[in-house]
Amino acid sequence: MAAIEVVRKILREASQNNPLSSARGSDMLVEVAKWLFSKQLAFLGDPPITIVLWNGSKIMPADGKSVGTVIIRDWKTFFKLFVQTELHFGNAYCEGDIEIDGDLIALLEAVYRSRARVLKNNLLNEYVTKIINKPKLNSFAGSRENIHHHYDIGNDFYRLWLDKKMQYTCAYFITPSVTLEEAQVAKMDHVCKKLRLRPGETVAEAGCGWGILALYMARHYGVRVKAFNISHQQVLGAREQAKAEGLDDRVEYIEDDYRNISGRFDAFVSIGMLEHVGSDNYRELGKVVQRSLKENGRGLIHSMGRNRPERMDPWIERHIFPGAYIPALREMMEIFEPSGFSILDVENLRMHYAKTLEHWLMRFDNAHERISAMYDEKFIRAWRLYLAGSLASFTTGDLQLFQVVFANPGNNDIPWSRAHLYTGIGR
Amino acid sequence: MAAIEVVRKILREASQNNPLSSARGSDMLVEVAKWLFSKQLAFLGDPPITIVLWNGSKIMPADGKSVGTVIIRDWKTFFKLFVQTELHFGNAYCEGDIEIDGDLIALLEAVYRSRARVLKNNLLNEYVTKIINKPKLNSFAGSRENIHHHYDIGNDFYRLWLDKKMQYTCAYFITPSVTLEEAQVAKMDHVCKKLRLRPGETVAEAGCGWGILALYMARHYGVRVKAFNISHQQVLGAREQAKAEGLDDRVEYIEDDYRNISGRFDAFVSIGMLEHVGSDNYRELGKVVQRSLKENGRGLIHSMGRNRPERMDPWIERHIFPGAYIPALREMMEIFEPSGFSILDVENLRMHYAKTLEHWLMRFDNAHERISAMYDEKFIRAWRLYLAGSLASFTTGDLQLFQVVFANPGNNDIPWSRAHLYTGIGR
Repeated sequence: MAAIEVVRKILREASQNNPLSSARGSDMLVEVAKWLFSKQLAFLGDPPITIVLWNGSKIMPADGKSVGTVIIRDWKTFFKLFVQTELHFGNAYCEGDIEIDGDLIALLEAVYRSRARVLKNNLLNEYVTKIINKPKLNSFAGSRENIHHHYDIGNDFYRLWLDKKMQYTCAYFITPSVTLEEAQVAKMDHVCKKLRLRPGETVAEAGCGWGILALYMARHYGVRVKAFNISHQQVLGAREQAKAEGLDDRVEYIEDDYRNISGRFDAFVSIGMLEHVGSDNYRELGKVVQRSLKENGRGLIHSMGRNRPERMDPWIERHIFPGAYIPALREMMEIFEPSGFSILDVENLRMHYAKTLEHWLMRFDNAHERISAMYDEKFIRAWRLYLAGSLASFTTGDLQLFQVVFANPGNNDIPWSRAHLYTGIGR
Repeated sequence: MAAIEVVRKILREASQNNPLSSARGSDMLVEVAKWLFSKQLAFLGDPPITIVLWNGSKIMPADGKSVGTVIIRDWKTFFKLFVQTELHFGNAYCEGDIEIDGDLIALLEAVYRSRARVLKNNLLNEYVTKIINKPKLNSFAGSRENIHHHYDIGNDFYRLWLDKKMQYTCAYFITPSVTLEEAQVAKMDHVCKKLRLRPGETVAEAGCGWGILALYMARHYGVRVKAFNISHQQVLGAREQAKAEGLDDRVEYIEDDYRNISGRFDAFVSIGMLEHVGSDNYRELGKVVQRSLKENGRGLIHSMGRNRPERMDPWIERHIFPGAYIPALREMMEIFEPSGFSILDVENLRMHYAKTLEHWLMRFDNAHERISAMYDEKFIRAWRLYLAGSLASFTTGDLQLFQVVFANPGNNDIPWSRAHLYTGIGR
């Protein structure tokens, strides 16, 4: 019997009966699983990992060199993995049906690197992605629900592993060894300098998180800020903080959608919101920015990005960031091009996001006891997988972080060079 | 009689007889020209310029404020202008059928600014551009002919108005007041630093001009360079220079198409060639770069750019740069995205190109006497219009200059930040 027919037969039987009920069925199932896993690993470019099945059988790299082991606890998990690998890997890991022996990050990095090598130049993959990659339209109500899902878990939870000022976006490490706190301040300063903020100017911020950037801009650059966010918990926290710092006369937090920004500003900034906008709304976002920016205004959008369009990881999309989409730089141009904006500067900070995630994951692990008291094991495993997977995505180049600076095309009131970002000299 | 019918009648008559033969015909023609010019000016957003017709009639801005005057010498020029304005404006200016009273640059800037205001958000324009903007396929032979047209005019001509080292691309002015010579050296150094060249590495250069960058890289960064160019005169000059500087063991100039680059290199660089590649060839260029770059290689492409796709100016395309196309940043992604490259850095240097052109035009004007001895007035007027028009395009934001740095996605041997470009510190 050809291998594929064995598989078909087993799968058919498995859907009707427990294949473990007969010794022969059980043996065959293990053989099928081994065969299918080896095919799947070949499809992923044979990453240097080991798979151990429920009966102890192993699928190992040909050269025996393995960075980690994936333990599949039972045959049901094996079946689910073959329906939707990425989705069910995440689910099974959270449920404890899959265990990782070795460093989770190193294992994920090995898989991502290997997959990238295989998919590079895979035209079929390119076309398939184009077809299935239909963006979801984030309506006003839908956006609110999606954002609530992630950001309204509770400020106390985020406080346990973010920096003290609660910035949940990529930091900027002047050198790799500075602290996360220093790097988050440096990020804000880098952004303010890129926008060349001047005292008395006005700024619109779309998606302001816990509001720390708005406060920083007001305090250190003397600007007035209107900051928009649809996360109720974040806005409440931000208003409290503004009051505590005596900046509530210069920083206004508005619990509303970025599409409702009104007024005209000297600068527009959005840090880590674009991932939640959805590519179908980019053109509209561009229009919002265009009508919000004065003729000589400057804008900055900071977002995770891709080297080429890719669908979202289905597990992340379902369980962590519903409605999210991470664009290629080309796709981001749909914000700027129809509105006639001129791109002044694009910086890719992916290694800085990897470093940021390294800090978050370390703090997350250090806070394990306190988080355990608040949430169940499944929740903790989900967050760990999300943080480790994101870290591996940035170190392997699967994800990018783009900071894009733009202005109206005829605006010559722009910095002469980028030297002022680094030397403090010039404009 | 409705105005449009007057026009039709006059145009019909004019195609058969000289309308100046009757006094009434002549008067009517002037009226029609005034009416049509005022419509055309309105279409261009009413730029602050004056038009003077062959009989002295004037079309002036409503507020009387004018930065310059366009003098139309005869009715034939007026007719041609209405067939293809951009093409025949250039032609007529070169022939002396159109004269400019006032500063040519200021006048062109006024028109470009005004046109940009009108076209911004003009969806119709966007769609029309998409339809008519079919890229031309630059074949090997076609490329050679197009390049010959522009670059093989004679090195002596370029020597009269370029910097001493003959760089015919955008310079990098540390401050606006440095000399062109200093700025061209700074440009080369900026590029080398962005590529983070290290001694002993190898570099492929596509479209090397008179070869100066290759020599600079070899001398100051200790690399070996293979530099490609299909301009015969430029390659001859470059080889001579390499020999004179004793660098011909480390720099090889190859008179061949970029598509024939072979070997694998640590860096790929192309300064001001992309404009001649044609957007239909971007994907292939990406493949050439991909097969030429080592796994940890870095690349830099420096090109004029647009904020959004626009057709080439027909006069420039016909008389100055046949086969040329200036891409929007989104279009440039067709080089990088299918080959899976990761964009690390994009810098827009348009103000630096404006400054470069300011220097070139000044030197061109200063060399008027010597150029007059070599070429006729028509040639000189064509070059002056081309330089002035390009300058105005950069100052008004109609044209951009993008330097794009890229690498393979999994390459972590990339600079930690861009600080080293400005401080000389870090990597």
